[in-house]
Amino acid sequence: MSHILVIGASGQIGKQATEKLLDAGHTVTALVRNKDKLSDVTADNLNIYEGDLEQDFSGAFKGCDTVVFCAGSGANTGPDKTLLIDLWAARNAVEYARQYNIKQFVMVSSVGSDDPDAIDSPIKPYLVAKHMADEHLRNSDVPYTILRPGSLTDEAGTEYVQELLPGDEDKREIPREDVATAIVYSIDNEKALNRIYGLFKGDQPLKSVIQ
Amino acid sequence: MSHILVIGASGQIGKQATEKLLDAGHTVTALVRNKDKLSDVTADNLNIYEGDLEQDFSGAFKGCDTVVFCAGSGANTGPDKTLLIDLWAARNAVEYARQYNIKQFVMVSSVGSDDPDAIDSPIKPYLVAKHMADEHLRNSDVPYTILRPGSLTDEAGTEYVQELLPGDEDKREIPREDVATAIVYSIDNEKALNRIYGLFKGDQPLKSVIQ
Repeated sequence: MSHILVIGASGQIGKQATEKLLDAGHTVTALVRNKDKLSDVTADNLNIYEGDLEQDFSGAFKGCDTVVFCAGSGANTGPDKTLLIDLWAARNAVEYARQYNIKQFVMVSSVGSDDPDAIDSPIKPYLVAKHMADEHLRNSDVPYTILRPGSLTDEAGTEYVQELLPGDEDKREIPREDVATAIVYSIDNEKALNRIYGLFKGDQPLKSVIQ
Repeated sequence: MSHILVIGASGQIGKQATEKLLDAGHTVTALVRNKDKLSDVTADNLNIYEGDLEQDFSGAFKGCDTVVFCAGSGANTGPDKTLLIDLWAARNAVEYARQYNIKQFVMVSSVGSDDPDAIDSPIKPYLVAKHMADEHLRNSDVPYTILRPGSLTDEAGTEYVQELLPGDEDKREIPREDVATAIVYSIDNEKALNRIYGLFKGDQPLKSVIQ
């Protein structure tokens, strides 16, 4: 069992990941800006750390051996926050992970961030930020797992996925719950180290893809 | 003499750099979005290449051995353009430079981009973009020179500078013309390879600082 720092633990993926990691028996430090947003999650193995990703949040790393970054500036803020959160806070998290000898950094990235030029997308600035954050992580000496899910939905997870980008754009989806489950399967898993996974709805068992 | 691609050649630094490089006898390919903006610059050793930094602009690199990146999204556009131009176009320029075996890449960066967290600045998103672009260049195998000028002014250049950040904030200035001159002194200059220079008004001859 690991001691996992979840950055963005009150987000839509982060909260599900936190609950699943706690259920799996891990200790979780949940980094949130406002602890009220996690008031419905209680467990003996949960520590809540209030912090601001635009400030120094290195204190949250104390005692942790694993990091999950699933913070995002969200759809309702401008690209200045894309730069400050999706890129810079992620970059700083990698630097702190290096300082704290973190054994695994799980980054929730996005489909399309491998090559932001590939399609003419309205979210290209976001994909650029995610690309550069992923690149910074890959160039660090911190062992990483990068998840690149398709369009996120609120459906219940099925745990059936495929890694390859579906040709049909309508099929480039994945329930957030399956991304949260993929995080759990990634942790303490040698096979997932220094790997990048695409995650789309499909017909392969999620566990067999990650583990 | 070199064949220099100036990216952002119609900008406030770029135009002065282009003129000075032409005067020094170099051949210049000037990459601009709109060639009318350079209609007042004529020289036999000038080629103008119209291109869009948000598209593939690798064609501009053909025949060049040196690159100067002084494009900027400017103060009148939003941080989406900061991501697309100041960060991503710079990143793509480095990738093209790698493909074309460019012997020197001169990047016009900014004071503060070494550590965007150091001060609470309204231009922090811009500094993050410049930091990550500089980092991408430094991690490439392309020999680089990074210039980090202070606040840019339209005064005539004096060619007297200092590298260290002045303690007095009012003195953290530099005429654009001196930055343009620093670009010229950097090129074909072994001492300037894989170096980062701060550039502020001061009392040292610019030429002796760079060369």
